Amino acid sequence: MTTQTIPGYTYGHPDVARSPVSMEEFERLKQTVLFTEEDVHYLRMAGDVLADQIEDVLDLWYGFVGSHPHLLYYFQGPDGQPIPSYLERVRARFGQWILDTCRRPYDQDWLNYQMEIGLRHHRTKKNQTDGVPAPPHIPLRYLIAFIVPITLTIRDFLARKGHSPETVEKMHQAWFKAVTLQVVLWSYPYARDGDF
Amino acid sequence: MTTQTIPGYTYGHPDVARSPVSMEEFERLKQTVLFTEEDVHYLRMAGDVLADQIEDVLDLWYGFVGSHPHLLYYFQGPDGQPIPSYLERVRARFGQWILDTCRRPYDQDWLNYQMEIGLRHHRTKKNQTDGVPAPPHIPLRYLIAFIVPITLTIRDFLARKGHSPETVEKMHQAWFKAVTLQVVLWSYPYARDGDF
Repeated sequence: MTTQTIPGYTYGHPDVARSPVSMEEFERLKQTVLFTEEDVHYLRMAGDVLADQIEDVLDLWYGFVGSHPHLLYYFQGPDGQPIPSYLERVRARFGQWILDTCRRPYDQDWLNYQMEIGLRHHRTKKNQTDGVPAPPHIPLRYLIAFIVPITLTIRDFLARKGHSPETVEKMHQAWFKAVTLQVVLWSYPYARDGDF
Repeated sequence: MTTQTIPGYTYGHPDVARSPVSMEEFERLKQTVLFTEEDVHYLRMAGDVLADQIEDVLDLWYGFVGSHPHLLYYFQGPDGQPIPSYLERVRARFGQWILDTCRRPYDQDWLNYQMEIGLRHHRTKKNQTDGVPAPPHIPLRYLIAFIVPITLTIRDFLARKGHSPETVEKMHQAWFKAVTLQVVLWSYPYARDGDF
């Protein structure tokens, strides 16, 4: 699947609004999560390691969500059943998200798309992209909590291509920083005015 | 210093309000960050490992904050200078927080105190405990971002007492889960009504 055919994937499109977070503030956030050029290097490496394992990673993550009713809930229709087309469309974007996290330059387009992702979890835009009648909002508490499973479960995949434990650790730390940085940016629409 | 003499430390006091997060929701949050009884075990071990290194950990964290003007800012008075008594009072509680994270049972008192800690970072109660004229609010973005430095920098300290790499890793993962779980709870006052 090319990025053009991923349903609802609008990275870099002109209709993605400009992020309310300035580049100056973004730099301060990178400093706060200890993100450096070295992390960019190890994220690129992680991208190469993960590229042919994307479906396995998604199987694991979907298995995690699917085995917890309080998480699967956000994919359900009014009949209490998960909506297959919704799960599928999100899955394609989620796979691309892994690659974008590793390979995209963290520039203005990237920053803008983080806000878009935040809005799509928040009641502002949830369900709109996919036209589904699922619950209208993913709570902030689960957005932040997900830093843990998304970080811890990636490690085994990073270790599968014969890199040294030190290199795997560097890729893993870069991933952890990148995920946390994104959750920070996604939290913007959830915060009370002036609280972000 | 005993917990009774730590300035502004009110863990378990009757004037700490009940958390708006129910025990049932707290259980779901623990599942979401993969927190199990095994983590409780390794947190206790981490507490024993860290107990005589608290000042060293705090030196490192204060060094990190002190070397970043955008972070030190939240400890400054109207003259733009850090307020020594504020830094000192917070430091005593921060040290106790390390031990509480490792050793306290995560019961109703613990849950209540997490809300209190959140309020003390948020504009609702910041500065009140210490009676200082510092900036009135720590932004949500830094609260979440701090998961990274607070998690990554603890690892060396966990490794200093001769435990196997596997055991250090288990302690470190338990710490990561515990820190993220707390940041989730601290975010409550920042969220728009119904968004948490």
